[in-house]
Amino acid sequence: MANKIANSENFDSNDKALVVFTPSGKRGRFNLGTPVLDAARSLGVDIDSVCGGRAICGRCQIVPGSGEFAKHGISTNKNALSEFSEVEKRYETKRGLKDGYRLSCQTKILGDAVIDVPESSQVHKQVVRKRAEARDIDINPLSKLYYIEVDEPDMHDPSSDLERVFLALEQQWDLSGVEIDFPLLAQLQKTLRDGKWKITVAVHSDGKNNDANKEIIALWPGFHDAAYGLAIDVGSTTIAAHLCNLATGEVVASNGLMNPQIRFGEDLMSRVSYVMMNPGGDIEMTAEVRSAISELGRQTSDEAGICIDDILEVTLVGNPVMHHLLLGIDPIELGGAPFALTTGLPVKIPAIKLGLDLNPSTQVYVLPCIAGHVGADTAAVILSEEPYKSDDMMLLVDVGTNAEIVLGNKDRLVACSSPTGPAFEGAQISCGQRAAPGAIERIRIDRETLEPVFRVIGSELWSNEDGFDEAIASTGITGICGSGIIEIIAEMFLSGIIDIDGLIDGSLALKTDRIITNDRTFSYVIHQGEQTLAITQNDVRAIQLAKAALYAGIKLLMEKLEITQIDTIRLAGAFGSHIDVKYAMALGLIPDCNLAHVHSAGNAAGTGARIALLNKHARETIETVVRKVEKIETAVEPKFQEHFVNAMAFPHKVDEFPNLSAEIVLPAPKPAAPQSSTGRRRRRRK
Amino acid sequence: MANKIANSENFDSNDKALVVFTPSGKRGRFNLGTPVLDAARSLGVDIDSVCGGRAICGRCQIVPGSGEFAKHGISTNKNALSEFSEVEKRYETKRGLKDGYRLSCQTKILGDAVIDVPESSQVHKQVVRKRAEARDIDINPLSKLYYIEVDEPDMHDPSSDLERVFLALEQQWDLSGVEIDFPLLAQLQKTLRDGKWKITVAVHSDGKNNDANKEIIALWPGFHDAAYGLAIDVGSTTIAAHLCNLATGEVVASNGLMNPQIRFGEDLMSRVSYVMMNPGGDIEMTAEVRSAISELGRQTSDEAGICIDDILEVTLVGNPVMHHLLLGIDPIELGGAPFALTTGLPVKIPAIKLGLDLNPSTQVYVLPCIAGHVGADTAAVILSEEPYKSDDMMLLVDVGTNAEIVLGNKDRLVACSSPTGPAFEGAQISCGQRAAPGAIERIRIDRETLEPVFRVIGSELWSNEDGFDEAIASTGITGICGSGIIEIIAEMFLSGIIDIDGLIDGSLALKTDRIITNDRTFSYVIHQGEQTLAITQNDVRAIQLAKAALYAGIKLLMEKLEITQIDTIRLAGAFGSHIDVKYAMALGLIPDCNLAHVHSAGNAAGTGARIALLNKHARETIETVVRKVEKIETAVEPKFQEHFVNAMAFPHKVDEFPNLSAEIVLPAPKPAAPQSSTGRRRRRRK
Repeated sequence: MANKIANSENFDSNDKALVVFTPSGKRGRFNLGTPVLDAARSLGVDIDSVCGGRAICGRCQIVPGSGEFAKHGISTNKNALSEFSEVEKRYETKRGLKDGYRLSCQTKILGDAVIDVPESSQVHKQVVRKRAEARDIDINPLSKLYYIEVDEPDMHDPSSDLERVFLALEQQWDLSGVEIDFPLLAQLQKTLRDGKWKITVAVHSDGKNNDANKEIIALWPGFHDAAYGLAIDVGSTTIAAHLCNLATGEVVASNGLMNPQIRFGEDLMSRVSYVMMNPGGDIEMTAEVRSAISELGRQTSDEAGICIDDILEVTLVGNPVMHHLLLGIDPIELGGAPFALTTGLPVKIPAIKLGLDLNPSTQVYVLPCIAGHVGADTAAVILSEEPYKSDDMMLLVDVGTNAEIVLGNKDRLVACSSPTGPAFEGAQISCGQRAAPGAIERIRIDRETLEPVFRVIGSELWSNEDGFDEAIASTGITGICGSGIIEIIAEMFLSGIIDIDGLIDGSLALKTDRIITNDRTFSYVIHQGEQTLAITQNDVRAIQLAKAALYAGIKLLMEKLEITQIDTIRLAGAFGSHIDVKYAMALGLIPDCNLAHVHSAGNAAGTGARIALLNKHARETIETVVRKVEKIETAVEPKFQEHFVNAMAFPHKVDEFPNLSAEIVLPAPKPAAPQSSTGRRRRRRK
Repeated sequence: MANKIANSENFDSNDKALVVFTPSGKRGRFNLGTPVLDAARSLGVDIDSVCGGRAICGRCQIVPGSGEFAKHGISTNKNALSEFSEVEKRYETKRGLKDGYRLSCQTKILGDAVIDVPESSQVHKQVVRKRAEARDIDINPLSKLYYIEVDEPDMHDPSSDLERVFLALEQQWDLSGVEIDFPLLAQLQKTLRDGKWKITVAVHSDGKNNDANKEIIALWPGFHDAAYGLAIDVGSTTIAAHLCNLATGEVVASNGLMNPQIRFGEDLMSRVSYVMMNPGGDIEMTAEVRSAISELGRQTSDEAGICIDDILEVTLVGNPVMHHLLLGIDPIELGGAPFALTTGLPVKIPAIKLGLDLNPSTQVYVLPCIAGHVGADTAAVILSEEPYKSDDMMLLVDVGTNAEIVLGNKDRLVACSSPTGPAFEGAQISCGQRAAPGAIERIRIDRETLEPVFRVIGSELWSNEDGFDEAIASTGITGICGSGIIEIIAEMFLSGIIDIDGLIDGSLALKTDRIITNDRTFSYVIHQGEQTLAITQNDVRAIQLAKAALYAGIKLLMEKLEITQIDTIRLAGAFGSHIDVKYAMALGLIPDCNLAHVHSAGNAAGTGARIALLNKHARETIETVVRKVEKIETAVEPKFQEHFVNAMAFPHKVDEFPNLSAEIVLPAPKPAAPQSSTGRRRRRRK
């Protein structure tokens, strides 16, 4: 762009001035005296404003004379811009202004100038996402604030308050076709008079630019510059909320609550069963989840120190059962074939219709569901990871009680849900527990001695390191969490304790007393404390069933796409964040892939909810993508059962995973043997 | 049209048949075997249907072979249509079928035929309005019923229930872009399964054909053929409701309730004052009027024997204060200059948002207001009387506490409100009362003797006719109603009891003892019973002030339009229905006009509400017209005061009303004198 700019020698000497805006490089000639903000607008340069050029909001700040164009010899003349005005001084005194910054609405062009628009003044700011492979979020929210000065009523030309508000929006912001959410009519009269005919309105704009539905959803007397949104991931266990500033995208508070529906059943199917056994039970659960969401609104607002009424937007994601309960729809159809959703379409409603204890006009957007087993949470994962933009063949896996699997690239996407059961979450495992301090999360087994070393949540030390016992003294060693189980089973396989069919080799009892027997099956003892932590044959079976289901689902989708190789794998959710992908691959949970291209996607569902909150086009995108995703129902695919049976076994050789073998390294052995650690522990407890 | 039809000689003898539909005259050639309904649709012939050709609704009946085309020698061949089918026999047995009528969806074309579409099967039926000068109402409601057969869920091609409902609407009714009102989502699952995947939905369509917002607002399992609407006129005193069949326009029940806000103040200003004195008082009044509307919904449904949930549409009209209170908007701004409406725009909301105890998704439409004093009731009067279509210069007057006045024709309309006060309603008159049995409503004064004869509400007899005393024995003679006062003052003027300045001529006391004096002013005694009914000088003044205000308003509008002559006058509301227009003209309430062109418009506001209920285009029309009406605020028009002062006097001579003089005829004198009637009455009461 830079070299397109004329040199200063080429400037005309008539009464127009050449202005170049950086970083966009947009430029034009303007009459002397034109406010910089107007000049920027006329060129389509992206400068923010809430007050519409009245030196109130301070969003439109610019910096004269900097930017790369200065390097090209086009610098801003000392007198190119009007002097720092009284209005700017007043603003500086009241709200502060960084050295060298000007209010573009108050600064007039008096000569050729280069003007820099800093990131903080741009409309489409970027929210930086921390993961290297993730794209940043472009800020383009549906609700924006507009400060307006409304004509007072005039008997000579009678018109209603509302019509004059609409006129002001049209004249001062070029916004036409605006409507108002009904409950606000009752506030309008007083707000106008309290604000002495100056008010700020929040306009929610849904749809494409020209045929958008534009609606006033909040109003305040005078100038108001606070607009927030709440992105909520309704999980079966936890409901997590991120409170975001709609103008900057900044997460100002995050909070989570246990899903209060847990008292009706730990997992989805038990909640559906509750409704089957207790008709009307869905109404109780709907009330519970809605009140939890309201509570999260209060908690995050308090934490951030904002007024809850300034929350203007809410986005919600969840699996289909959570989605239906949230919307007040009986979920029982989701509990059995044909698993029909009542609706999978996106839902757009004011908060009052959901019974949320927020500003009644706050706009709630529930992301679309994909199918009866693949919900709005998966839609959010897709929005976060963007496989629909990918050239590579990308696999997304979100493991919970079911695993939602999405596979494809920019040409085609397929999705299914696979019934992994809760084993990956540590349930159905004899010594399994939730991820909490005291739970074993990492383990290595010596290939020769079959002795384990492990790490426990709450400490960074391995069990064979000095100070381990002291470090875990407060929690003890209480069980094994989901990611720990994956590692243990994989290490048991890699060290030969279980064979490719998953059978624990009882003959190893001759070699180590960690192999014990009980009722004709064998177990491997990891830890002998107040309670014995051991992996039983049934535990191995449970993991085999779960991983076979996951792998069969993935295999089914790969066959649908007629591919044999996956380029990128993203593991979403808590499971994805905590497991060591090497072991997932060693166990055959996921197909072979260059380990450098296997990543945790973090809380991708929550991130997707946040993207849908901050960017209106993202909503259109995900609605379109969801329609195009091909839904595969594993229950009616004959091949699924075949893949499932085949995937029960463990991989024949680790060598079959060409990328994996080199990756697994045992921790350096330490002088103190793990047994003695256990022994010390036992002694101290006595 | 008839002579455009080819003679039977011209018929082709190939395998297509010529079909002529009457009364439209539309015709076409169709393959043998085509159902008559399909043939009609392809020609754009207006045949109704709810079931979509499944022999369930019976709306699509036709009559073969009749119509005027038969007279032209083109008759329906005996075998031109398929035989009366089993399906039709079943329908006839279950629901009855008039002799000769066929179901067009079940009747196939087998040869040339003339087919008559009776009025009852046409989509755009007409509702006949009784007044000769009123146009009929074209039925074209916003909500229509559609019977659909929805695909069952299929695991091989997963889609949600709602998406399959939308697909059925698109495939079976060519309706696309439909949405669903949120609360119905909770019913959808059960309704589909209860109806075995056959349901009826009500689709509310707002806006023009192509960019209409189409929304499902009700659903029923199976076939359902009942859709109603409620047109409500919220008066300060009375709330009146008409329950209409949306398909036929028929009024199936009417009912009225006292406006329960009356306990907060009899008239508008006292209600506004109540809010001024009792902040928050508007909330009570809002709750009262809403619960009265809900009650009217129940009462009219019960009366008509329909299910209240089958009410799909509501239209509401009312003056600005009633309008604001109904919508939950504080009305105090309407109580003083500059009389600013909070909103005058049309309001479209589901019943639940108004807190009405109706089907939550029932669509409420509140007609637009014109100005701070000219409300949605006047908009409805305009819609009923259609001055915007008139070549003639038309004056609409709706007299209440204020008089709303609209003047104009298809080129231009002006409107104002004039502060007549409540005198025309019998308030502020010493012996005034509401129109109720016992109130004097008609009077004649003998020009020579100055003796009055009168009639009382509840009897058709004049007071000088035999049997009068008996006829009124149960009610007595209790006061004078609004229309009676107009006649009395006019007769007093015409018989010389008052002069052109409104002074009662005390010298007439020499001639008749009906002129009495009290504290230096005179009164005219009409009736001497248990209480004396007399017109005092103050009563005359009150009517003078009221009629001067009304006339000044009319005069102001005439000046705005620069006209001196009005072609047509329509008097709306109860006042307009009861007064004798001769006397209104004699008093100078309304300007001179050919009496044959002065009519009561009946309950024009209620009629307008009914039109907006039944015809979607009428809503667009009134919204456009209201925007174009020029609003005149009498308070800021200097000429208003001048006209007002000038209009205080009575017309100089009756001769100045060229159309009037011949019209007023005294009732034939009867043997019994009025005094003896009064005497007899007094005697009997003793």
